[in-house]
Amino acid sequence: GPSLLHEQRRRKIENDVVEFWYFMRSELKKMKSTSKGDIVRVVDRVLSDGANYQKTLHNDFNLLRNVENAGELMKKESEELGRLVQKRFKYLQNPKDCASAKKLVCNLSKGCGYGCQLHHVTYCMMVAYATKRTLILESRGWRYASRGWESVFLPLSDNCKDKKGSSSRPWADPDIIRDAQVVEMPIVDSLHPRPNYLPLAIPMDLSDRLMRLHGDPAVWWIGQFVKYLTRPQPQLQTDMENAKAKLGFSKPIVGVHVRRTDKVGTEAAFHSIDEYMLYVEEYYDRLEAREPVHTRKVYLASDDPSVLPDAKSRYPHYTFISDIEITKTAGLNKRYTDQSLHGIIMDIHFLSLSDYLVCTFSSQVCRVAYEMMQTMHADASAYFKSLDDIYYFGGQNGHHMEVLEKHISKQPKEIDMEPGDSVGIAGNHWDGYSKGMNRRTGKDGLFPSYKTQSKVVIVDLPTYSEVDEDSHIDQ
Amino acid sequence: GPSLLHEQRRRKIENDVVEFWYFMRSELKKMKSTSKGDIVRVVDRVLSDGANYQKTLHNDFNLLRNVENAGELMKKESEELGRLVQKRFKYLQNPKDCASAKKLVCNLSKGCGYGCQLHHVTYCMMVAYATKRTLILESRGWRYASRGWESVFLPLSDNCKDKKGSSSRPWADPDIIRDAQVVEMPIVDSLHPRPNYLPLAIPMDLSDRLMRLHGDPAVWWIGQFVKYLTRPQPQLQTDMENAKAKLGFSKPIVGVHVRRTDKVGTEAAFHSIDEYMLYVEEYYDRLEAREPVHTRKVYLASDDPSVLPDAKSRYPHYTFISDIEITKTAGLNKRYTDQSLHGIIMDIHFLSLSDYLVCTFSSQVCRVAYEMMQTMHADASAYFKSLDDIYYFGGQNGHHMEVLEKHISKQPKEIDMEPGDSVGIAGNHWDGYSKGMNRRTGKDGLFPSYKTQSKVVIVDLPTYSEVDEDSHIDQ
Ligand SMILES: Nc1nc2c(ncn2[C@@H]2O[C@H](COP(=O)(O)OP(=O)(O)O)[C@@H](O)[C@H]2O)c(=O)[nH]1
Ligand SMILES: Nc1nc2c(ncn2[C@@H]2O[C@H](COP(=O)(O)OP(=O)(O)O)[C@@H](O)[C@H]2O)c(=O)[nH]1
Repeated sequence: GPSLLHEQRRRKIENDVVEFWYFMRSELKKMKSTSKGDIVRVVDRVLSDGANYQKTLHNDFNLLRNVENAGELMKKESEELGRLVQKRFKYLQNPKDCASAKKLVCNLSKGCGYGCQLHHVTYCMMVAYATKRTLILESRGWRYASRGWESVFLPLSDNCKDKKGSSSRPWADPDIIRDAQVVEMPIVDSLHPRPNYLPLAIPMDLSDRLMRLHGDPAVWWIGQFVKYLTRPQPQLQTDMENAKAKLGFSKPIVGVHVRRTDKVGTEAAFHSIDEYMLYVEEYYDRLEAREPVHTRKVYLASDDPSVLPDAKSRYPHYTFISDIEITKTAGLNKRYTDQSLHGIIMDIHFLSLSDYLVCTFSSQVCRVAYEMMQTMHADASAYFKSLDDIYYFGGQNGHHMEVLEKHISKQPKEIDMEPGDSVGIAGNHWDGYSKGMNRRTGKDGLFPSYKTQSKVVIVDLPTYSEVDEDSHIDQ
Repeated sequence: GPSLLHEQRRRKIENDVVEFWYFMRSELKKMKSTSKGDIVRVVDRVLSDGANYQKTLHNDFNLLRNVENAGELMKKESEELGRLVQKRFKYLQNPKDCASAKKLVCNLSKGCGYGCQLHHVTYCMMVAYATKRTLILESRGWRYASRGWESVFLPLSDNCKDKKGSSSRPWADPDIIRDAQVVEMPIVDSLHPRPNYLPLAIPMDLSDRLMRLHGDPAVWWIGQFVKYLTRPQPQLQTDMENAKAKLGFSKPIVGVHVRRTDKVGTEAAFHSIDEYMLYVEEYYDRLEAREPVHTRKVYLASDDPSVLPDAKSRYPHYTFISDIEITKTAGLNKRYTDQSLHGIIMDIHFLSLSDYLVCTFSSQVCRVAYEMMQTMHADASAYFKSLDDIYYFGGQNGHHMEVLEKHISKQPKEIDMEPGDSVGIAGNHWDGYSKGMNRRTGKDGLFPSYKTQSKVVIVDLPTYSEVDEDSHIDQ
């Protein structure tokens, strides 16, 4: 397969090309909105021709990625890495002697939605992994299911579910908690001190392989935790299979998540179905240039029951796959019920099984689906279009961009950059510019995304060398 | 090193990106020319930002090409292939027994300039190679040098310069000339029948290696013939070295050829120095993003003595390296003299040694320099900017583009295309569109260049297996 350096350079070019198009498209649209007559028609033609160039480029990059079966090789590498990591989790979660094992306790009572709570447990398990403590999950009386986590998911351990221990301490400085048998975790928002291995960090012993494999290795890493945590109970597994058959879920399919109700106007803006479908259309236009597409299928998930009929009537040539009964349980009035839990699990499951996601990354629902999607492909880091945020993990350590090229601001909104500067990124405006703060100058503002590159944070973590790669513990 | 398929796909993407920019730039310039006020300023900013994106992309492609030392490996491969081919030429040109050897006679009396005549001999030698006949060059009374070819270049053979033979025939059908010991060649314009191995064909036994190595393998192949034909006599070699020192020719340097006098208005349009310098500037802007550039040097060749002072006064921050005495011998009144021959050889030599060429490919002077340039790099196929024609070889067989994507014409000037169609290309308009004739429909017109790809013509030629690659004949 291709080398790490080759992959990094190839990805940089793919990124340049996409950012160049975001820039051009946005400038052309702005010109159009301030003009009339002939110019409008010209801009429309150039936008449509430009989209065709991008379609070709997109597909040509696909071909380059898959040259000489590299795509298959990378798929195997992802599976192998996944197996290795899952084996480590299993080892950590099944200590020889639970009575004397060091433990980390996480409580599901965080007052938020399912995605948010799952991310809470994910962060706990990351700390467990880093401190070599078995994660004990307290989920009795969970707002989504009073019978707890195990009403839907496999227990995190076969032999160690009890938080008993000789000594117990809340999270604190390493010196203070090192010898405590049990450590109790707060929600990430009140975590103190904050360790360096929180997202978006990746473990050093796997970093070369992960960076070669994946365009956003931190998401792959998070996805592995989510995968372990959400291993379905047999009943849920059966339900998923039945639902798949009943809904007629099959590929190619694009997953669309439309988050409405309590989110709109508070944490996110309203987006009409047209905004999502623009990118669904783009996805299928590109796919059709590679292979015939018989039905343009969309898996539609939402907490707003009005979205499905609206989408169906506006896009009659699309087939929408969706369970309106699930949507009806997603509203605030029914949200914290077993039925609603079952529904959101299904929705996330099918979103993650889709070929491409169109959604708002401000919602944890879609981010969870995106994380899980990574465990099923070689590199699905680009298999999404977010209408708002870039990917993030709630409570993450700062996400920094490394500056590759000098930039001299040309408008008051822009910031200056020098090669080597570190810019904390707040968001990508999808118009060629991102927003952030240059840590050298302290200045906040816009900068051209293509002149920067995500910094991968690599941290020294336990390597679990006890888990011999060849002695299959059980799977 | 990278595989053939990898290289083809990488080159396709590079080409898409360049054509996309040609398209965008041209559309933006058209918008600007039909607008006023604010739009003009916006377009200027977008053009300048766009050029920066392209600079980054250009340099990122460079990095990708050179990943893991691939650039060096490819350089070696080019040298190895070159050695192999030159050995074959030497073998062909030095038959064991000249008296009984089959011969092909070429006469330098074609009534045209040096580049045109050199191409005439090149075409003859290609026929010689294909028919395994030793090339005999008749150059006495050459319009450029009455003492003939060998007044400047090494003889094409050490032991076989005489066209004597038991039987002699002018070029004709293979059956007719097969047994003739001597065949006399016409100029390519009156060649009949026309063999399939004329440019832009490449030999089958080297085709995989050449196509992996080079973005335009036909030019590499032609360059090898030109290289053999123009091996300098010791005196010329010394003159070249002295001139190099005297002129201060050193890298980085861009070669600019400005063809004027008899060419303008007949076979080519007038181009101001500004049009050339635009691309020189672009070259150095891109280079400067990779490494510091102390002096922006230009090797300037022209047949018009007014170009140098004009360039110097308009571009004072550039260093122009040029021998005005040479230019003065290039005008029609002094053109066919020993001194002028010496001058054009020098000019082509230094143009070919430059890092990048900016010129009009309608002139054979620049095309010869470009051909020779190929023998000195791994893949210098993109080291040029032509203000008019795409590369061609006078008298070549048709140059066809393979259609990769469907195109439905949107204006009367455009032609329809289906994947697999073959389009004879007449030129690239450097605005995203090329001009040509679809052989399936017989329609002539414009088509988007990025939807097509040059067809490489591969022909079965003698493989000269007698020339064992390992037994070094002499070099
Ligand atoms: N079934 C279903 N439930 C949803 C959907 N969107 C939101 N919800 C419900 O609303 C909750 C939103 O909370 P959370 O998962 O933290 O995501 P966020 O608030 O969008 O960031 C989910 O957990 C679900 O209970 C959806 O598309 N389908
Ligand atoms: N020394 C010199 N001679 C030139 C230059 N440009 C044209 N000439 C002369 O003009 C001739 C042009 O004929 P040819 O080589 O067939 O090229 P073309 O006519 O430009 O296609 C050359 O061979 C030279 O004798 C130049 O830049 N330098």
